[in-house]
Amino acid sequence: MTGSLAPRALAGALTEWRRALGDEHVVTSAEQLRQALAATLEHPSEVWALLRPGSREQLRQLVLTAQRHRVPLYTVSTGKNWGLGSRLPVRPGCVLVELSRLTTISDFDPELATVTVEPGVTFQQLYDFLAAQGAPLFVSVTGASPGASVIGNTLERGDGAGVYGDRVHQVCAFEALLATGETVSTGFARFGQVELARLHRFGVGPALDGLLTQSNFAIVTRLTVWLQRLPRSLSVVRFSLRQEQRLPPLVQALQALRLDGTLRSVVGLWNDYRVLSTRQRYPWELTQGATPLTRAQLATLAPAWGGGRWFGTAALYAPSPAVGAALREHVQATLGPLVDELEIQSREGEPKSGAELFHEGDPAFRFLQGIPHQGSLASVYWRWRGPLPAALDPDRDGCGVLWCCPTLPFRGSALAAAAELAEEVMLRHGFEPLLACLAQTERCLYLVPLIIYDRRLAGEDARARACHDELLTRYVELGFLPYRLGVQSMGALPPSVDDTDALLRRLKRLFDPAGLLSPGRYEPSD
Amino acid sequence: MTGSLAPRALAGALTEWRRALGDEHVVTSAEQLRQALAATLEHPSEVWALLRPGSREQLRQLVLTAQRHRVPLYTVSTGKNWGLGSRLPVRPGCVLVELSRLTTISDFDPELATVTVEPGVTFQQLYDFLAAQGAPLFVSVTGASPGASVIGNTLERGDGAGVYGDRVHQVCAFEALLATGETVSTGFARFGQVELARLHRFGVGPALDGLLTQSNFAIVTRLTVWLQRLPRSLSVVRFSLRQEQRLPPLVQALQALRLDGTLRSVVGLWNDYRVLSTRQRYPWELTQGATPLTRAQLATLAPAWGGGRWFGTAALYAPSPAVGAALREHVQATLGPLVDELEIQSREGEPKSGAELFHEGDPAFRFLQGIPHQGSLASVYWRWRGPLPAALDPDRDGCGVLWCCPTLPFRGSALAAAAELAEEVMLRHGFEPLLACLAQTERCLYLVPLIIYDRRLAGEDARARACHDELLTRYVELGFLPYRLGVQSMGALPPSVDDTDALLRRLKRLFDPAGLLSPGRYEPSD
Repeated sequence: MTGSLAPRALAGALTEWRRALGDEHVVTSAEQLRQALAATLEHPSEVWALLRPGSREQLRQLVLTAQRHRVPLYTVSTGKNWGLGSRLPVRPGCVLVELSRLTTISDFDPELATVTVEPGVTFQQLYDFLAAQGAPLFVSVTGASPGASVIGNTLERGDGAGVYGDRVHQVCAFEALLATGETVSTGFARFGQVELARLHRFGVGPALDGLLTQSNFAIVTRLTVWLQRLPRSLSVVRFSLRQEQRLPPLVQALQALRLDGTLRSVVGLWNDYRVLSTRQRYPWELTQGATPLTRAQLATLAPAWGGGRWFGTAALYAPSPAVGAALREHVQATLGPLVDELEIQSREGEPKSGAELFHEGDPAFRFLQGIPHQGSLASVYWRWRGPLPAALDPDRDGCGVLWCCPTLPFRGSALAAAAELAEEVMLRHGFEPLLACLAQTERCLYLVPLIIYDRRLAGEDARARACHDELLTRYVELGFLPYRLGVQSMGALPPSVDDTDALLRRLKRLFDPAGLLSPGRYEPSD
Repeated sequence: MTGSLAPRALAGALTEWRRALGDEHVVTSAEQLRQALAATLEHPSEVWALLRPGSREQLRQLVLTAQRHRVPLYTVSTGKNWGLGSRLPVRPGCVLVELSRLTTISDFDPELATVTVEPGVTFQQLYDFLAAQGAPLFVSVTGASPGASVIGNTLERGDGAGVYGDRVHQVCAFEALLATGETVSTGFARFGQVELARLHRFGVGPALDGLLTQSNFAIVTRLTVWLQRLPRSLSVVRFSLRQEQRLPPLVQALQALRLDGTLRSVVGLWNDYRVLSTRQRYPWELTQGATPLTRAQLATLAPAWGGGRWFGTAALYAPSPAVGAALREHVQATLGPLVDELEIQSREGEPKSGAELFHEGDPAFRFLQGIPHQGSLASVYWRWRGPLPAALDPDRDGCGVLWCCPTLPFRGSALAAAAELAEEVMLRHGFEPLLACLAQTERCLYLVPLIIYDRRLAGEDARARACHDELLTRYVELGFLPYRLGVQSMGALPPSVDDTDALLRRLKRLFDPAGLLSPGRYEPSD
């Protein structure tokens, strides 16, 4: 498909699009396109235009035009997929479609705790909306940008804070546009505007929602998000280990606490390098400009930030202060003997709405109750020199960020092995092993080795990519398969051992016979 | 397709099947087929043979034979789909395939709490297996037969006891056989025998599992079940209402307790008629042989069984006795003012395995910890006269059972309206309004109006069917769409308002071009 498009077809499509969307929403200037493709990683990219439809109906017309002229489209919600490709298409030779103008929020139900959003609705917008409603409800937010799309993150099967952090289980009533211009819906939504559509995931008959996540089969244009109730008791459990050897038994205890229902939300673990990177920027003076920061150098910094080897945070959501107190006691008894420091703080009371929490001082309490923050965003400036820009924009500022996303069995031995591998590989390639680990479910860990670098330095993109690729390859060899892929790695999966890849290819042809929607995205390897 | 099969094609297929499965597993005698099609409801049925493959590979060969000869197959696991069709095919003119001989249980992981089963594995077998392992883990069981298939119930998106009662969210690594003989897998299982496949639902890329539930796209031959930990504290909350008007505020409070995480498992509500039907059989003497039992007659029985209008049971699973106590206190404070009777009992301690619970006297505690029971089964003999048979078999015994399965928004007003409708319609058609209501999630109620009758009485099948159909139609009109369908009602759904039905039809053709797998099952209406 790439490069094979006749110039006339594109010109014809652009004419139709300009008429339908208005000139200002059909961007073709080289400079603007260059800016749109600014990203935190290097990936061969070239787009012919950027379209910004203003409504779901405009989007449908736009897709029909693309279909008539056989122009491939690559769709992003708000394009904040940092570390995994920002808004870069998987393959060059397409038109970028950004859905950030589709910002309708509708059907808010304060009793049954649901709200419906379009792809342009960001975590910040949804928080602001809920706060304005004054309902004691919140949407699980991510640690990434407040400007990220709720739908974008959901379709990537991203994770977040709170009991509803496994986001893809807390949404329903997808409306999706096919390449043919047809509209389909999941669950009971196929029967029209019934209330049940917003309350039940599956409806009756085959469930289609899973097909629309991590896929390029269709464009999701709307879905309903389920909201968690603000807790009457919330406790933040913080702990740390000074010695690496204590990690496996701690992980085993955390798994037991997930399995027995004590910990109902994601538990975060961070290594020393990662914690340092959230507290300060790279110590250029100490290393006299050299990279990476060695373990020995890191040790000399310990007095300044407290040291320690692994750090963790968990949350206890409880329906009453007494339940909260009993949960804290259980956690204290279980984790106490296994960690070097353990601190539990709590907040109690009957919250009226997220707006009230805005003045809460501890960012963890804010985050765990659905207030988006920019904390993690600042940390991708780790290798930045000099004062930070007033408004952060890692794409524009040349911050290099590459995520690798291995999934691990929830076992101490697995995390120890995966962390050791990351440390060896990343330091050898010249990057600090910045490790975050999320205890995502009762049975799995999501490890995130973050490669953070300065794209403005010659050769760094290639070194980062080599580091990433070695990590991904070696994790796959260990059976630690990725739960998400960056645009540069869509072809990196091993082939299926059975006929699943063949079925996935047939499904793609069924949904999108001409292969026009986001070519290459989450397609099986050839 | 029906009736159009050439006799030669069938004869050729039967010859191949006899060779592959052995004569004893290819049943063609009219008497045996009649027995196999015994069911609790009337539905036009006719099958040419019954096949019982002994392994997944035999099943695959069997399907390839069907494909070569173009013989439609209708697959059941163990065929215990009582109230929704037992093992009756949706359409006559096919070969019945029963998977009850596929009973392999494998890959038990006591730490991460998973086990893999084939379609013939029943709840009783899995309980026995786990008890023998001595692990403090259990699988959520249904209120139906201990002989029901775990996979069968899961694929129907059935529900059960415990925190993992929303069963379809607690399984992964489906292996499925396509009509072409191809094998596909969901999640990471497509990459082969990796441990992660049993620990993570989605893997990477489009998620296929939803497509394989309530569908006839493929035959699921294996999946991994996630196990819940036996609780260190379990409380059973029982409550009742004497007046109907108290129901709506109670439902609202239950919804709040689901939403705030107090109640993490299904809450059951039963009306007076339904409770009576679980305690005794129809009072033939009182009514002098007449049916249905009127409200006035029911009232005269109240002294014998205690009376009351609505009854409920909820469970509190807690990781420690202190958490259990605090949860009980919260429930007591919330529900106490809203009900007429409230009783909370609890069991505490560190359970070693389900085998220990076998001697627990209270059946609720047994059921809530994964011990299957026959209690509900006996209640379908409600209209039976004389002593019960030693071994219960509602299909054989002519028990009439027809379920209607409306989904309701989790609102008191919705349940009140749906219950009132059931009572009026069912009594008018000559049946007691036996109502069970499951608070399945934080946002939905599953109502089960049970039509229980005696199939041996002339005209009762037709009256029951007319009653069921009127209920279904009127619930759909109210927006209370069904979450499951019986074989007789697969064509009863309204058409989709968008292109979803068209997509579902295309998907069926993609998976099964000749339409050979379970024709009509959960297909959209024409």
